[in-house]
Amino acid sequence: MERLKNKIRDIPDFPKPGIIFKDITPLVRDPAALRLAVHQLLSPFLGRDITAVAGMEARGFIFGSLVAWELGIPFVPLRKPGKLPYDVQSVSYDLEYGSATLEAHIDAFDCNDKVLLIDDLLATGGTAKASCELVEKLGAQVVACAFVVELDFLDGRKALDNYQVHSLLHY
Amino acid sequence: MERLKNKIRDIPDFPKPGIIFKDITPLVRDPAALRLAVHQLLSPFLGRDITAVAGMEARGFIFGSLVAWELGIPFVPLRKPGKLPYDVQSVSYDLEYGSATLEAHIDAFDCNDKVLLIDDLLATGGTAKASCELVEKLGAQVVACAFVVELDFLDGRKALDNYQVHSLLHY
Repeated sequence: MERLKNKIRDIPDFPKPGIIFKDITPLVRDPAALRLAVHQLLSPFLGRDITAVAGMEARGFIFGSLVAWELGIPFVPLRKPGKLPYDVQSVSYDLEYGSATLEAHIDAFDCNDKVLLIDDLLATGGTAKASCELVEKLGAQVVACAFVVELDFLDGRKALDNYQVHSLLHY
Repeated sequence: MERLKNKIRDIPDFPKPGIIFKDITPLVRDPAALRLAVHQLLSPFLGRDITAVAGMEARGFIFGSLVAWELGIPFVPLRKPGKLPYDVQSVSYDLEYGSATLEAHIDAFDCNDKVLLIDDLLATGGTAKASCELVEKLGAQVVACAFVVELDFLDGRKALDNYQVHSLLHY
C-alpha cells in the first residue's frame, strides 16, 4: 500500500485550519496506481453477490464508476440536493456545523439490489451512514462500504457498525 | 445509437419550466450500454496522441474517468470553486443568469499534455469552452471535446470552433 500512499497528497489547513486534507488527485492522475486502488477496493467482493455500486458526489463518482465498470454492474450516483432531475428519495444528516442532504432517484435501485457503497474517504462516517440509509429507504440492501482512505482517529467505522467496511489506506 | 438513446430519459421542466433535461442515470445503470457509450466516446481518438483526459464536475467525472481508464492515461477533474485543496488555476464564465467558475490544480497537467475533454452534455458550450481555456492556461493542449449528448439547437459547437467536437447523441 506504500505505492498508493505516495499518491495521496497531504494539504495542511484545508478546508480549514488544523485539518490535513487527503488529496486524491495525484492518484487519479496515475493510471497504474489508480488501477491498483480500484482493484484493491473491489477485491474483497469478487464472487460475492453484489448487484450495484453506489458512489457519493463528487469524488465517489470517480472511484464508484470504475469499481462498477470492473465488476460489470450498474453504477448509481448519490447526489447533492437539486441535481437529480427525476423524482428523488433523500436523507439529511448532521455535519459539524449545519446539515447536508443526499438524494437518489426513486428508481435508482431494484428492490433486490445488493449494493457496494464507494467513496474516496471515510472521516466521521456521516455521509457514508446517510448513504446507507438512502439505499435502504429505496428498498435495496447495503452489502459493504469501501473507501480509498480512512481517517482512523475520527472513528467513522463506528457509525457504520452494521456494515462491512473496507479501506485501503489508514491514517 | 438507438440503443443509447433508449437509455437517456427526458425529464420535462427540469431544472426550470420549458427545459427538457436529458437524464443519463439510466445509461450509467446499464453496464452494456455504458460500455458502448464509453467506447464510442473514445473510438475517434484511438491511436491519436492523447496523454490525459479531463472531466467536468460532476457527471463528467463518471464518463471522463471511464474514458481515461480505458485509454490507460491520467484523469484530471475540473472542479467547482473551493473543492480542490491545492493551489488552483481558475476560469470564470457567464451563464444565462450570473456566472460560474471552474478550477484545476496548478500541477494538474504536464506542459506537453494533449488533453481530451469529456462531459455528458454539450448545451450552449459555456462550460466546455471555459474548460478548454482552463486546460490551456495550465500549459496543456486541448485535442478534442467529446460528449454523450449534444443539444444541436443550442449551437454549443460554435463556442468550440477551435476544437474537434465529437458527440454520440444529437437532439
